[in-house]
Amino acid sequence: MKESTNILKISDYFKCKRGDYLFAAVAKEIEKYKKANPNADIISLGVGDVSLPLAPIVCDAYAKAALELKEKSTFRGYPPYYGHDFLKSAIVGYYKDKSVDLSDDEIFVSDGAKRELNDLLTVFSDFDAVITSPSYPVYADACAARGARVEIVEASAENGFIPLPERVKTKGGAVVYLCSPSNPTGTAYPREVLKSWVEFALTSRSLIIFDAAYESFASGDIPRSIYAVEGAKMCAIEVCSLSKSAGFTGVRCGWTVIPKELVSGGVRLNDAWKRRQATATNGVSYPVQAAAAAALSDKGREYTREAVKYYLENARILKSTLVSCGIECYGAENSPYVFMKCPNGFDGQNFFEFALKNAQVVVTPGGGFGESAKNYARLSGLNDRGKTVVAAERLRRILDNQE
Amino acid sequence: MKESTNILKISDYFKCKRGDYLFAAVAKEIEKYKKANPNADIISLGVGDVSLPLAPIVCDAYAKAALELKEKSTFRGYPPYYGHDFLKSAIVGYYKDKSVDLSDDEIFVSDGAKRELNDLLTVFSDFDAVITSPSYPVYADACAARGARVEIVEASAENGFIPLPERVKTKGGAVVYLCSPSNPTGTAYPREVLKSWVEFALTSRSLIIFDAAYESFASGDIPRSIYAVEGAKMCAIEVCSLSKSAGFTGVRCGWTVIPKELVSGGVRLNDAWKRRQATATNGVSYPVQAAAAAALSDKGREYTREAVKYYLENARILKSTLVSCGIECYGAENSPYVFMKCPNGFDGQNFFEFALKNAQVVVTPGGGFGESAKNYARLSGLNDRGKTVVAAERLRRILDNQE
Repeated sequence: MKESTNILKISDYFKCKRGDYLFAAVAKEIEKYKKANPNADIISLGVGDVSLPLAPIVCDAYAKAALELKEKSTFRGYPPYYGHDFLKSAIVGYYKDKSVDLSDDEIFVSDGAKRELNDLLTVFSDFDAVITSPSYPVYADACAARGARVEIVEASAENGFIPLPERVKTKGGAVVYLCSPSNPTGTAYPREVLKSWVEFALTSRSLIIFDAAYESFASGDIPRSIYAVEGAKMCAIEVCSLSKSAGFTGVRCGWTVIPKELVSGGVRLNDAWKRRQATATNGVSYPVQAAAAAALSDKGREYTREAVKYYLENARILKSTLVSCGIECYGAENSPYVFMKCPNGFDGQNFFEFALKNAQVVVTPGGGFGESAKNYARLSGLNDRGKTVVAAERLRRILDNQE
Repeated sequence: MKESTNILKISDYFKCKRGDYLFAAVAKEIEKYKKANPNADIISLGVGDVSLPLAPIVCDAYAKAALELKEKSTFRGYPPYYGHDFLKSAIVGYYKDKSVDLSDDEIFVSDGAKRELNDLLTVFSDFDAVITSPSYPVYADACAARGARVEIVEASAENGFIPLPERVKTKGGAVVYLCSPSNPTGTAYPREVLKSWVEFALTSRSLIIFDAAYESFASGDIPRSIYAVEGAKMCAIEVCSLSKSAGFTGVRCGWTVIPKELVSGGVRLNDAWKRRQATATNGVSYPVQAAAAAALSDKGREYTREAVKYYLENARILKSTLVSCGIECYGAENSPYVFMKCPNGFDGQNFFEFALKNAQVVVTPGGGFGESAKNYARLSGLNDRGKTVVAAERLRRILDNQE
């Protein structure tokens, strides 16, 4: 093929020979295996995709809104940049029930957490970032793409995979990515730990970007929003998603909270984000927002609670099976994820290959989430119950044979 | 309110006291007028939002796909990062009918053109950009947000608002934004002009980002894709949208074409964009893509052709009314937009206020699209026929009274 090289300077981010995005890379390996073994009955505990269908009330609202676009009298064009009022109100109500007071114009409806976790960085330049590790690889990629100076704060078995701010070396303000309940470790920050991060941010004049995508899996005294901690509105943006709670991985809807108190370099971040989103996006489809509002209704939330229970039970099954095989495990209590130490000198990548070949079970190699996780693997409880039980038994078989 | 200023460095883009995004600013002024005149019967020829409902086949496909998510057997989670195969094939077929050959993996399904016109720049750093003026304000904002060095190439009445590459001063490679049929002027680039831009890009080793959002309004020998011009695959990305053709302003679906031939700084742009989108997005909702595929079906396209005719007739009505009042006008032949020279020493902003106050008709002040358009206003033919006719008569009245 004839090619044409223009002389534009490519971002450093794209210059380095970067591997594929973690889950794209894993998907490629699975495809390769499938090609070589077309009859293999593979069960995926890999990518954290949900398996339960949407709540009927959600689908009905989604379809009804889609049909409204057929009639001139109910047709809607461009959605409001920051979300429909009915959805923003529903989100404010959702927080109210978590004892967090927000106002409608602190809410920005989004097409999911992933994009927001990237795009928020466009507001800053020439900045430091702190990323706890292991963590969702999007944080590190977003920072690299934006040219941030990144400090990795490692969590490990030693501290129960709960990273603490004492370890941060960066002086002065930084963007600090936190996620609780954590992807991939499944561990959740106790209130005291979250408090210490908020204190750290206030003292060092940093900004926390709090990824609350798994909040609906938390229970007991685990905060389900960073704003449950006093002072957080002065130092934190929260990014949330309906993907794992209401099963919206394929619907694409979430939100970002930017309290009005937050100011950087003389600019109110809530205003900056309003300007940015109006210029760079055209909002989220009305039917999608109607579906989201249904998911946050009483009936929708009831369905979510049942789904969360179901996935937590899957995770419990996986964890108890692994533990009974003598495997060290984290998570599963406030999270759909089980984070396992790979046995017998396997690293995560080897264990991924071993499990795929010998049990036709897909796990996610821990190394993709950070160096300190390279001897671990993440197992998702978000698959179907029947398949989860079979996968657990298959894993037991290959782990028992290992001894 | 207590505030907290962190010490993160804000991007230069947000530091300068930038006005609101054009259409957000206009919307604010209209709100103000409405508050003061609650009974005013305002007709908007402002923001280019569509008024016809979606094709029944599109709504039915959208709703059917939404309902599929209710059943476990037809539920779908994460969409593929770059779009469903069925939609990419439909898009390739759409181009085939325009005599352009593309392959599926040169298509990236998006949630609309606006976001893509911004995000594509994340691939580059420290680069020059050429923006023809007047143009969609998103180009200038995207470049400013990315810190590009921007050269504005003015088009004016002199050259019929068709900018030519001879005017470009930037030496060496640049990102060149082009849009035909043009927003806001409604003029369309004849094949020879588009050819000259492609030759310019190839010679100067630049990259064209071609905004084809209004392609469905072009007729005759006006190219409906930049790839209708030989050599364009070696120098151009095309961004397209179903917003104005199939009425998807509220559904949010479009696509970006990145030919495999394109290389910048040793990196194949198609690969770079794959990596970027997999890392920064989770694709477009399946029901939205099902709706888009229906819009590109034979029946869907038939509906689009009728809608385009309808909007073109609206634009023709507006233009002929204005011309009969002695107003100099552009557009309306290959575009739903009429671009009018404001009469009697009005600039665009004054005429906007004058038309709102005296005719309760909203137009968009030209200055928002570029300095050379500050004495012009854009009128959209995308509103309802009845309202368009009334708006035209009201404008005739205030223009006649002016003389």
